Amino acid sequence: MKNIGGATQRETAAAGPVASHSEDLIVADWVEGVERSTMREMLSLGARPDVLSFALGLPTTDLLPRQGYAAALVESLENDQLSLQLGPPFQPLKQQIVALMAQRGVTCDEAQIFLTSGAQQGLNLLTRLLLNEGGQVIVEDTAYTGLKMALQPHRPKVLTVSTDPQHGINLDEVEQLLAGGARPAYIFAMSDGHNPLGVSLSQVKRERLAMIARRHHVPIIEDDVYGLLNYDRSSIPPIRALDDQWVFYVGSFSKILGPGLRTGWLVVPESLIPRLSIVKDLSDIDSCTLTQRAVAIYLRSEQFPGHLADIRREFRERRDLMMRALTDHLPCARWETPTSGLFIWLRLPSGVDTAELLKIAVERERVAFIPGKAFGFDESKQANECLRLNFTYCRRDQIEEGILRLARVLEGVIG
Amino acid sequence: MKNIGGATQRETAAAGPVASHSEDLIVADWVEGVERSTMREMLSLGARPDVLSFALGLPTTDLLPRQGYAAALVESLENDQLSLQLGPPFQPLKQQIVALMAQRGVTCDEAQIFLTSGAQQGLNLLTRLLLNEGGQVIVEDTAYTGLKMALQPHRPKVLTVSTDPQHGINLDEVEQLLAGGARPAYIFAMSDGHNPLGVSLSQVKRERLAMIARRHHVPIIEDDVYGLLNYDRSSIPPIRALDDQWVFYVGSFSKILGPGLRTGWLVVPESLIPRLSIVKDLSDIDSCTLTQRAVAIYLRSEQFPGHLADIRREFRERRDLMMRALTDHLPCARWETPTSGLFIWLRLPSGVDTAELLKIAVERERVAFIPGKAFGFDESKQANECLRLNFTYCRRDQIEEGILRLARVLEGVIG
Repeated sequence: MKNIGGATQRETAAAGPVASHSEDLIVADWVEGVERSTMREMLSLGARPDVLSFALGLPTTDLLPRQGYAAALVESLENDQLSLQLGPPFQPLKQQIVALMAQRGVTCDEAQIFLTSGAQQGLNLLTRLLLNEGGQVIVEDTAYTGLKMALQPHRPKVLTVSTDPQHGINLDEVEQLLAGGARPAYIFAMSDGHNPLGVSLSQVKRERLAMIARRHHVPIIEDDVYGLLNYDRSSIPPIRALDDQWVFYVGSFSKILGPGLRTGWLVVPESLIPRLSIVKDLSDIDSCTLTQRAVAIYLRSEQFPGHLADIRREFRERRDLMMRALTDHLPCARWETPTSGLFIWLRLPSGVDTAELLKIAVERERVAFIPGKAFGFDESKQANECLRLNFTYCRRDQIEEGILRLARVLEGVIG
Repeated sequence: MKNIGGATQRETAAAGPVASHSEDLIVADWVEGVERSTMREMLSLGARPDVLSFALGLPTTDLLPRQGYAAALVESLENDQLSLQLGPPFQPLKQQIVALMAQRGVTCDEAQIFLTSGAQQGLNLLTRLLLNEGGQVIVEDTAYTGLKMALQPHRPKVLTVSTDPQHGINLDEVEQLLAGGARPAYIFAMSDGHNPLGVSLSQVKRERLAMIARRHHVPIIEDDVYGLLNYDRSSIPPIRALDDQWVFYVGSFSKILGPGLRTGWLVVPESLIPRLSIVKDLSDIDSCTLTQRAVAIYLRSEQFPGHLADIRREFRERRDLMMRALTDHLPCARWETPTSGLFIWLRLPSGVDTAELLKIAVERERVAFIPGKAFGFDESKQANECLRLNFTYCRRDQIEEGILRLARVLEGVIG
């Protein structure tokens, strides 16, 4: 007989009087102590119409292709009898993704593509597939909050390595951990437009990561959700271009078509697909089949290449606007120029606690950001004086205004 | 330091030579030994155009409201700037669901509704929220395959109770288990159109289930995905109508609007919503926001009541067609009339192994069903001589033809 988790608590509850409220409800052990989702809080904050928000990791609403996508939906519903029915994952969308991956410098085929309900689901499926309860993962000490969330139910031993907005993940530390006997289920990495640091990895680092994965038989989960948002001409292919067996690639349409579609993909070795299907089926059977069809139609339309170019140009210009505003109004702050993604990582003068600053910023100046602390995977190395600014969600005219507000808040704090 | 699952295997792998294939990849312990998803296999079989399939649990394709839904999508994309953006769960859809629940005889409010990507996700989210690794659940010995899938990663101790197509779940056995010290994370129940047995529970059983849940502080997960498909005038409200604290209700639009939409809902105590949000966020952040909007528009349209009546009438007529064909061509089989849902549970003469029969049926007569074994939660009590027939997916003219084929297959086997 297997060990029954939480048995003592259940017994206590059952011995009490008949209850009329679910306060006596016993939940799984991992849920106890987990705080309200950071992401949900950010979304709530972002939904407040009076707050100018640099907090959300979203693309601008007005560039999302509502008209073109409506046409794609109507085409699918008019011509495809199966558009509301369940069926096998939609092959033509996989074909389009293979073509997109080629634009990214990655050679793959349809049999290696796995469709997901967005990148977060990709991350969650891979985590459930690879990580045992209490198992190990290697993560930068400052990384994507959604990863922290996906890890929570597994109560893993998180092995952190240092990172910085200039060079990214410290690979000496990764190798030290592995040489010291660490056996992680995976290493999590972002090669372009790191969330939250904004950094993109050098070619040398990408090669070294691929080599580490091969040598140690440790998969890398490469989160490349900003991969199609390079703002420089000379973009480097992701790590997946260097290894097709040990690098599991996570992609998404959220930043280029719309986060509300919840549509993304994985590129994994073909041998992994049947096992991923098991995890996907038990999670939600399939992603919306109509969305799969309509996204495929939109991607092969004449509009898509121009739309992607528009998004890239617009995001680059907003990034430049924000950097100019930072130079003009926040000279005490330090940052690196992000060549991809949605974020600028700002370091304020030491002693400033950005979690405290956020409260004042929202109350007094109605401007929001995410404090560095929210991205901390290692309590002893939290980036308390840092914050993450998104430059793709607010309108152009709001960017300078928001930085001005932030400058006023900071002035009030450091005098 | 926590125990690290699978450490030995990982060490073995890491000590080997540098690999070029992911065959050396270590997956989580639960994945080892899990067979290819039954559901995926059914879908593949159902996708074979030459096979007449009574296997799939799907509504007929030709009744899905493609035109009305296209209009709803276009309305949302034209008028609602946020239709492709992320945001809080869509309140107007919750309002529509409250109204639908009232049709079902359930009083609830918007604050108790939690939107999901279909019923399977609802089940999976509740399981992750409530069940510890190795914890207990109470399930009928013959039940929904998707539940078995959702349980797998938790490697639970499944406590089974007997059930039958006339009366459903045996509540004496449930009470015996609880009196004997069982402390399940939940009891799984279907009150209408049981999958696969077709049975609907009596009012007395519903009341007793609600009482058991309250008395023992054990939540009931009530899977009511066929709740709006009652074929008799006098439908009984679900268990949730009798208790709003210990019954967690799972609903879905799959059977009435389209399974490809992957849209469903839970009705739970309001106090559970923040913790459910945590599990949902880490799983996939949100369900498709455009779908939430368009479904809400379609539900409040003038077409919906007529559409729902059409679906009900058509399914009832197909059920009657199948029962007539069974009476005419398979007199040796026994079954009960299902008053709700999509399925007839057929018992063949003892000695017939329906898993073996399926192979012959597909090969020789190109007709498919699901063998009883697939629904077994207790290896010692598998319904080997039973099978599940769906009556809502095939066209009317295919139903008698399919039963004729099945009769020929059976004749060849039992002579």
